[in-house]
Amino acid sequence: MRRYHYAIVIVIALLAALVPVATAYRTPDTYSGVTAEEEYDVLFQVSTIDALMLGVYDGTLSFEELEKRGGFGIGTFDHLDGEMIGLDGEYYQVKDDGVAYPVAGNMTTPFAAVTFFDADETISIEDAENYTQFGEYLDERLPSKNVFYAIRIDGTFPYMKTRSVPRQEKPYPLLAEVAVDQTISEFQNVNGTIVGFRSPEFVKGINIPGYHLHFITEDRKAGGHVLDFQIKDMEVEIDVTPDFFIQLPKEGDFYNIDLSQDLGSDLVKIEK
Amino acid sequence: MRRYHYAIVIVIALLAALVPVATAYRTPDTYSGVTAEEEYDVLFQVSTIDALMLGVYDGTLSFEELEKRGGFGIGTFDHLDGEMIGLDGEYYQVKDDGVAYPVAGNMTTPFAAVTFFDADETISIEDAENYTQFGEYLDERLPSKNVFYAIRIDGTFPYMKTRSVPRQEKPYPLLAEVAVDQTISEFQNVNGTIVGFRSPEFVKGINIPGYHLHFITEDRKAGGHVLDFQIKDMEVEIDVTPDFFIQLPKEGDFYNIDLSQDLGSDLVKIEK
Repeated sequence: MRRYHYAIVIVIALLAALVPVATAYRTPDTYSGVTAEEEYDVLFQVSTIDALMLGVYDGTLSFEELEKRGGFGIGTFDHLDGEMIGLDGEYYQVKDDGVAYPVAGNMTTPFAAVTFFDADETISIEDAENYTQFGEYLDERLPSKNVFYAIRIDGTFPYMKTRSVPRQEKPYPLLAEVAVDQTISEFQNVNGTIVGFRSPEFVKGINIPGYHLHFITEDRKAGGHVLDFQIKDMEVEIDVTPDFFIQLPKEGDFYNIDLSQDLGSDLVKIEK
Repeated sequence: MRRYHYAIVIVIALLAALVPVATAYRTPDTYSGVTAEEEYDVLFQVSTIDALMLGVYDGTLSFEELEKRGGFGIGTFDHLDGEMIGLDGEYYQVKDDGVAYPVAGNMTTPFAAVTFFDADETISIEDAENYTQFGEYLDERLPSKNVFYAIRIDGTFPYMKTRSVPRQEKPYPLLAEVAVDQTISEFQNVNGTIVGFRSPEFVKGINIPGYHLHFITEDRKAGGHVLDFQIKDMEVEIDVTPDFFIQLPKEGDFYNIDLSQDLGSDLVKIEK
């Protein structure tokens, strides 16, 4: 009879323990409306490209926080201190010496776009002589121009041309002025990875329409923002990303700049 | 001694029950990277306004799912079947007879914008003779033109002019063609609520820059998309919304339309 009582108490204990476990599993879904699978198809972005063009370089989100939104992506750093590459959950900072440095969790970003990379399809490219040819070839093969794609290319690139930008001090100059002082790196037959996105035309002002790619070498020691490259017999991994989350700054310069201007032509000059 | 054993078992039971409760509370934060407070400051949007302009009227998200993203907002229905108002967690469908009907959870929307409304500030307006005056007055008092604001106004409006659109059948016409057949409702000294948003200029093509407001009467029986209104001694509740989540359709017409056009001038004609 006493053993029977123990058994009842233990059963109640187990039930009491299980109910909240069930709650915990349901919470992400019922709470935020985002399921695990959906979360992986979100392109998460900090601020807007036009704010960056207008010199809003103060970091607003730490890499510790950014990591929760994805370990694959591109961006820059507080004070515009270089080009960011996120790959396989690690972040790298390519400063204006062209060298890739590790990124501490308490560093911050004023502009970044990340996701959890999970390839939906692979497209083979036999030969692309430059960035433009690459873009035209891929555009013909993607299912739509109206959604986002995360893009990853691993292998040996016959040619790669990257740039990085120098850290800025306040009062911050416009990005077009900074770009004049950019450092160019060129590589031949370099092993490494292209990390980036293709965005629809309608993100104009918010992000870069079309392709925006960064590069890091296989030894994770050099790279930058991709200006041009060649491809010979490589596979392009594509992650279709239908959801787009923009986190705008909650204070600072972002609140006061004029974002109603069309900066499209300046952007093309700076990015390509 | 036996009583002592019972006590240990009960303590273990309580501890076992408490650990997962703590996990449950932490889950939204560690899981999706979104905290409870942040979740409430997200403007969640289905599809883009330009897709709607181009006749993409097939619903892609159920109201059951939309509800998880917020019970306050505006939008339309599958087949463009009327104007949607979300208020205090309830959704209403104003069909082209100007009458508000309840919305079933399995109904779907091709375009909607919702949030969890939680006023950050209140702005008093003594007198606004029309929509334009209202907009100018509020614009001067908002902290920035570069973030999103959810807007709620309860009370007696001296004048209110709304419209609704008729349900469409395939092949869907453009929104500009449908707007010709819109039904206009006019109200004098009407009790009710304005529900809507002010969006930054940079959402052009994605949502409506500036104000986009819908109205529903206090008895929840009539309303629609706001074309014009007057204000006399009313309070405007403002919820600053820095985060913006866009869920694009994953298939269908959206994939094939040309979203690179500038539909801005058509939009102004249709919405005001």
